[in-house]
Amino acid sequence: MTAEIITIGDEILIGQIIDTNSAYLAKEFNKIGVSIYQITSVQDDKDHILKALKEAEDNADIIIITGGLGPTKDDITKLTLCEYFKDELIEDKDVLAHVEHLFSKYIKTPISEINRHQALVPSKSKVLMNKYGTAPGMWMEKKNKVFVSLPGVPYEMKALISDEVIPQLRKKYKFPYIQHKTLLTYGLGESAIAGRIEQFEGQLPNYIKLAYLPSLGRVRLRLSAKAFDKIKVESEMERQVQRLLPFVKDIFVGFEDNSSIETIIGQRLTDLGKTLSIAESCTGGRIAQSFTANAGASKYFKGSIVTYATESKVEVLDVPEDEIFKHSVVSREVAEAMAKNVRNLFNTDYGLSTTGNAGPTKGDSDAEVGTVWIAIATKDKVYSEVFNFSNHREKVIMKATNKAFEMLQKEISKK
Amino acid sequence: MTAEIITIGDEILIGQIIDTNSAYLAKEFNKIGVSIYQITSVQDDKDHILKALKEAEDNADIIIITGGLGPTKDDITKLTLCEYFKDELIEDKDVLAHVEHLFSKYIKTPISEINRHQALVPSKSKVLMNKYGTAPGMWMEKKNKVFVSLPGVPYEMKALISDEVIPQLRKKYKFPYIQHKTLLTYGLGESAIAGRIEQFEGQLPNYIKLAYLPSLGRVRLRLSAKAFDKIKVESEMERQVQRLLPFVKDIFVGFEDNSSIETIIGQRLTDLGKTLSIAESCTGGRIAQSFTANAGASKYFKGSIVTYATESKVEVLDVPEDEIFKHSVVSREVAEAMAKNVRNLFNTDYGLSTTGNAGPTKGDSDAEVGTVWIAIATKDKVYSEVFNFSNHREKVIMKATNKAFEMLQKEISKK
Repeated sequence: MTAEIITIGDEILIGQIIDTNSAYLAKEFNKIGVSIYQITSVQDDKDHILKALKEAEDNADIIIITGGLGPTKDDITKLTLCEYFKDELIEDKDVLAHVEHLFSKYIKTPISEINRHQALVPSKSKVLMNKYGTAPGMWMEKKNKVFVSLPGVPYEMKALISDEVIPQLRKKYKFPYIQHKTLLTYGLGESAIAGRIEQFEGQLPNYIKLAYLPSLGRVRLRLSAKAFDKIKVESEMERQVQRLLPFVKDIFVGFEDNSSIETIIGQRLTDLGKTLSIAESCTGGRIAQSFTANAGASKYFKGSIVTYATESKVEVLDVPEDEIFKHSVVSREVAEAMAKNVRNLFNTDYGLSTTGNAGPTKGDSDAEVGTVWIAIATKDKVYSEVFNFSNHREKVIMKATNKAFEMLQKEISKK
Repeated sequence: MTAEIITIGDEILIGQIIDTNSAYLAKEFNKIGVSIYQITSVQDDKDHILKALKEAEDNADIIIITGGLGPTKDDITKLTLCEYFKDELIEDKDVLAHVEHLFSKYIKTPISEINRHQALVPSKSKVLMNKYGTAPGMWMEKKNKVFVSLPGVPYEMKALISDEVIPQLRKKYKFPYIQHKTLLTYGLGESAIAGRIEQFEGQLPNYIKLAYLPSLGRVRLRLSAKAFDKIKVESEMERQVQRLLPFVKDIFVGFEDNSSIETIIGQRLTDLGKTLSIAESCTGGRIAQSFTANAGASKYFKGSIVTYATESKVEVLDVPEDEIFKHSVVSREVAEAMAKNVRNLFNTDYGLSTTGNAGPTKGDSDAEVGTVWIAIATKDKVYSEVFNFSNHREKVIMKATNKAFEMLQKEISKK
């Protein structure tokens, strides 16, 4: 069983927004055993949408359409759905009542004619109530194929998928079982890993596929299995993972299917009952933000300081001024003082720090652009490493963040 | 003239990575006057890629293919290109020398057979050298249509686009002129704005289109013009912007074409010679990270503190313990103490703070999930506002971040 995703909106095709909805949809559908055949982003244009609907109907069993349902004039998706299904728009009483409710509660104005249009739906569609917004989801069927049209606002779309679409699809179809296992590795390139595990790869059964997903200093190895027999999938997957692990023992960080390395670290710290604080310079808050994006961070993360200006390193973090003078602000001495002092200030078990030049120009240091020192302080020790992450600002920040995760993961795995 | 983007990779179709390349490509092509007809994400599968190539060739003049060029076995793009162009792979000496150079400089090992494959290209292709990686770009032509295949690693792809692809396309074609003007507004919903500017919209010339891009408390209004006469486009766009501005005067924040609100704020602070520090609780570093993602942040941003744990607010930021006891950690008193104290600590002109419950569960406060206090401190005053941003964690963090930008933008625009 396959699905196709159609995202509608000129804003995607001019690059004003990044289409994050498709990744979410693809992940959720894969979880229930539905493969995504294709993702197609089309313009706010009737003929183009009609063409995409036709092609998707040829390719897939389930067609998920997102976007193009806002209350303004440039949204033509509903009229196009009517044309495709030879249908007409009618006003849905429940949706209208919901729109009126949202307006009276949050906006505190009566609804306008434009808002009232949100209650119009194709007469043959089943309405999926959108509790976070005014545009309803719509479920339509044609020759046993399902078409679902959803608003493009990510959290509205996500709630409709988990509360309405997936449960209703499960009622309608029997899905094969899909399992993914993703091994996160650090420190070795894609081709070096491929060389190591060539033999392993050659012996995989035909319903298990291996993919390499390299990204900024780390490589994910993803095993994907798909079959109707859930027990067979799970036991064979487990067997293959156990076969694979010895080949990558030295570079393996953890499994990363529903969790990023930040959550793996966070879970480990929570289990250990240990706490973390962070002092960031060149990474500018990105490390802290990665941890706090996840619920439960307050169990292990006490806080962090971004000392972007050199004087703040002295004034706020008590980095000795003469060390900065002697070694420059991008140095082992400064990184280690930052890690030690932030650990003391927040009274945590671990202190982590970064100081470097993200570029494009040199800051208050002569260090080459891309140079980053990363330090870790514990009760007993403080140590650091230096890296050069190229001269691309975004890449330097991301690589430094990833490397800090890697060092921290190694440290907390020691005992 | 139109282009189509094909992104290749199972990792996109299972939702493991978000396709950010397409947004970048779409933006760059729009800048030179090439519209993107469609973005299509397909599997690592020969037949599927062949079908996508055929359809793209029917739809567009330029076909940009990204992904599927890594050194591992699951990359079949090059062989598929050979089949499509009735061609064969040959070893390119320059690419091989480049791969060997990268390995000797950074990896410090001799290249393997797998790496050597990176130097294989279709014999009819023109090689585009990839200075940041081993997989070259490839330029092919067929009946006056251009096909460009690029690696999927974002910074490698971006460098190839700006250094090779765009300059070579400019040599080959004469492009129409496209101009976008995006007005960022805060504080009014999509439909309320639509009501206000209905008349304006109705009188736009047919080569200028208006789009509404709503997102978490802000709405972007994008005017797009396209014609061969650059002077006509620019003068008419200017005229339409001047017509539009009076309708949105009270909600207009700035133009946002190549700049986010963070860069607008950063530029304004830099122009004023003023500095900023931030104390974050529920936003967990996201505000600081948004500023420091941009080069030049060091001109106005001195630093920030994330006090995630309640005790850190007391110990690190000197928030009076009795205020927390009396009013709870999510309160006007705590937000204002944080803003005032971080401003003093970093010795800046402005201090900004957030404290709230992002959820999903209540923290050290009885405040309802979604409640966020945001405060601003200046030399003369400190003030704050409270918001409820719903019960969705990611949405609360994003909306609080956006609202903090809005309040700060208003404050620094006062004089």
